[in-house]
Amino acid sequence: MPILTLTTDFGLKDGNVGVMKGVIWRICPTAQIADISHLIVPQNIREAALILFRSAPYFPAGTIHVVVVDPGVGTARRPIAARIGGQYFVCPDNGILTPLLERAEEQGQTVEIVHLDKPNYWLPEVSRVFHGRDIFAPCASHLADGVPLRALGTPITDPVRLDLPKPVRTETGWRGEVIHIDHFGNVASNIHSEHLRESQADKSGIIVKVCGVEIRGLVDTFGERPEGELIALLGSTGNLIVSVVNGNAAARLNVKVGDAFDAIFS
Amino acid sequence: MPILTLTTDFGLKDGNVGVMKGVIWRICPTAQIADISHLIVPQNIREAALILFRSAPYFPAGTIHVVVVDPGVGTARRPIAARIGGQYFVCPDNGILTPLLERAEEQGQTVEIVHLDKPNYWLPEVSRVFHGRDIFAPCASHLADGVPLRALGTPITDPVRLDLPKPVRTETGWRGEVIHIDHFGNVASNIHSEHLRESQADKSGIIVKVCGVEIRGLVDTFGERPEGELIALLGSTGNLIVSVVNGNAAARLNVKVGDAFDAIFS
Amino acid sequence: MPILTLTTDFGLKDGNVGVMKGVIWRICPTAQIADISHLIVPQNIREAALILFRSAPYFPAGTIHVVVVDPGVGTARRPIAARIGGQYFVCPDNGILTPLLERAEEQGQTVEIVHLDKPNYWLPEVSRVFHGRDIFAPCASHLADGVPLRALGTPITDPVRLDLPKPVRTETGWRGEVIHIDHFGNVASNIHSEHLRESQADKSGIIVKVCGVEIRGLVDTFGERPEGELIALLGSTGNLIVSVVNGNAAARLNVKVGDAFDAIFS
Repeated sequence: MPILTLTTDFGLKDGNVGVMKGVIWRICPTAQIADISHLIVPQNIREAALILFRSAPYFPAGTIHVVVVDPGVGTARRPIAARIGGQYFVCPDNGILTPLLERAEEQGQTVEIVHLDKPNYWLPEVSRVFHGRDIFAPCASHLADGVPLRALGTPITDPVRLDLPKPVRTETGWRGEVIHIDHFGNVASNIHSEHLRESQADKSGIIVKVCGVEIRGLVDTFGERPEGELIALLGSTGNLIVSVVNGNAAARLNVKVGDAFDAIFS
Repeated sequence: MPILTLTTDFGLKDGNVGVMKGVIWRICPTAQIADISHLIVPQNIREAALILFRSAPYFPAGTIHVVVVDPGVGTARRPIAARIGGQYFVCPDNGILTPLLERAEEQGQTVEIVHLDKPNYWLPEVSRVFHGRDIFAPCASHLADGVPLRALGTPITDPVRLDLPKPVRTETGWRGEVIHIDHFGNVASNIHSEHLRESQADKSGIIVKVCGVEIRGLVDTFGERPEGELIALLGSTGNLIVSVVNGNAAARLNVKVGDAFDAIFS
Repeated sequence: MPILTLTTDFGLKDGNVGVMKGVIWRICPTAQIADISHLIVPQNIREAALILFRSAPYFPAGTIHVVVVDPGVGTARRPIAARIGGQYFVCPDNGILTPLLERAEEQGQTVEIVHLDKPNYWLPEVSRVFHGRDIFAPCASHLADGVPLRALGTPITDPVRLDLPKPVRTETGWRGEVIHIDHFGNVASNIHSEHLRESQADKSGIIVKVCGVEIRGLVDTFGERPEGELIALLGSTGNLIVSVVNGNAAARLNVKVGDAFDAIFS
């Protein structure tokens, strides 16, 4: 049973996610399908890239990830499919795969990308506004059904890349930025455990600064401190985050994605 | 593996959708189940009818669609199941199937409807408030499990019909109305590409009017115009829609379902 | 095909639910997975306990329910797995199973609980902040894959119990409290049909009081009364509820979980 995932900005009320599942099952009726998120902020390619990057590694080899955050639908932007390491990705060529491609290059994984330019693998009628239904879901389910990646399109080597913010080494630590605010209000930065490790900082000696607030020392988990306390810790993907125990740090700090986020070694 | 879909106004927080899946899998453990929407506006039969009408055709032949928007639950309104063309529908008899029945009649498809009046296919205990769990899910999964439609109930030919608004030909074009506002804020009318086609209008010559705003000419897709511009185009189901590029047209125009929506041929 | 369910407070936007499905399918690729709810109020163990208690019985024997509302993640609180009657539960030891355990004891069902203390059934790397991914999903899918409960951990007999509010017999009826407000705004109390039955009250003679409002007599279902009327009736799980016909009782009454809720026999 092939496994597919769906990540979109479609929301959950209009039936468009269901429609994609219908299209998939018409071509590959045994597919297992998991929703990763359909609440990506509309047209926010960067957020989709982040969520996908964090989620994909937990799926089995061979999983086919369909990602449709697609402000350029129906324009000249290319529909693409990629094999990165052991998984597949079907999406518009708008940079969504950037962090996955960067990691693959760091780790020396094989990458193969095709421009989905074979209409015989699309729905017979293709709209200019819903390629998730008309191109991406059909191509993904043909992949699931055993069609080789190369058959779906022409190889390319120049996928669009996002210019993603990287933390910068400062005299006293790292300056990063807020890259995600989750459902609980946890505030995640792009400063990763690896940045802290290479500077051999002691956990208790790190000062985190965000939105004018300073937090001294990292804790290991939420329940270590009393309810309502503002804490800094490593999140589930190794990123440095700020939280409020059983509360909402983003609301407390009035923080937004893109705000500066510092780790200072004292 | 039989395929079922669920469309309800139950929301996602209370577990009632999960309960229906449990009931389905107790009777038919191999069923593949897709959610179409559980965020239909409470008791809004017309919205459910529209979402179902747009989504069902993308599912395979044999799919069983369970639709539970049911203000009359537990009253004299009948529970029904229908075969329309190659698919099945299990729902209250409150008009939800109207657009599907109208299309089937236009296209000369076979329609067969039964009143679900055989309690041996229901849960042993039937509440007066949750027939999605007690009648619709069990009957749908018996269908999925191979029970013929006719076994589930007594044939009927008089299902309840909604009186759905149809666009009216005016001297200068078509007067329709807003029938849906999607997650992105796109404003969809009941004026369809077929209405425009039969009047042989040129795309650039059509003026769209909604909420006092005029848009001259249709575009083919969102990315043709700069961010923030108000545009008119054909949506993914062929309906005439108004959008804001990378923005929210419904919020901009303060429009609501039922508002007048005109296409004028200049 | 083994059946698993997921109940969490993770929300739907960040991909964490998808990640759990990926982990499950890496270990048990044929698992059918149903979402019960991911919109439990953050850290609200009592709400999760209620939703699970109401939903689990509708799933087949052998179903494995994974429940992750886990304010104590990464602290000394134990991860556990339980067999209660014919179903399995995998969750933190924080009281989530209390109502299920109470019912099992009332009904004389077998209960078996283990402390999940065998890291060979976890992900190789375990964070201190996301045991849903690192411990609960893997253990649940090993169960689904045929590993016996006893292999996953050491038996325990002292799971944490919540002190759940029980209705109190008054001179004139029962005093309970509001325990849930659903998506429709229906207000559910912990007074159950059994409480009313044992007092042999006549439906029309019961007065329901909540938030200073009195409702005389119970109806059988919503559609019996005109739109907008405040009614009292038995909900789908037998609990006494207050509703507004085609409206939102919680908004009308400005009621919240924990408010007093009385049934008075007149």
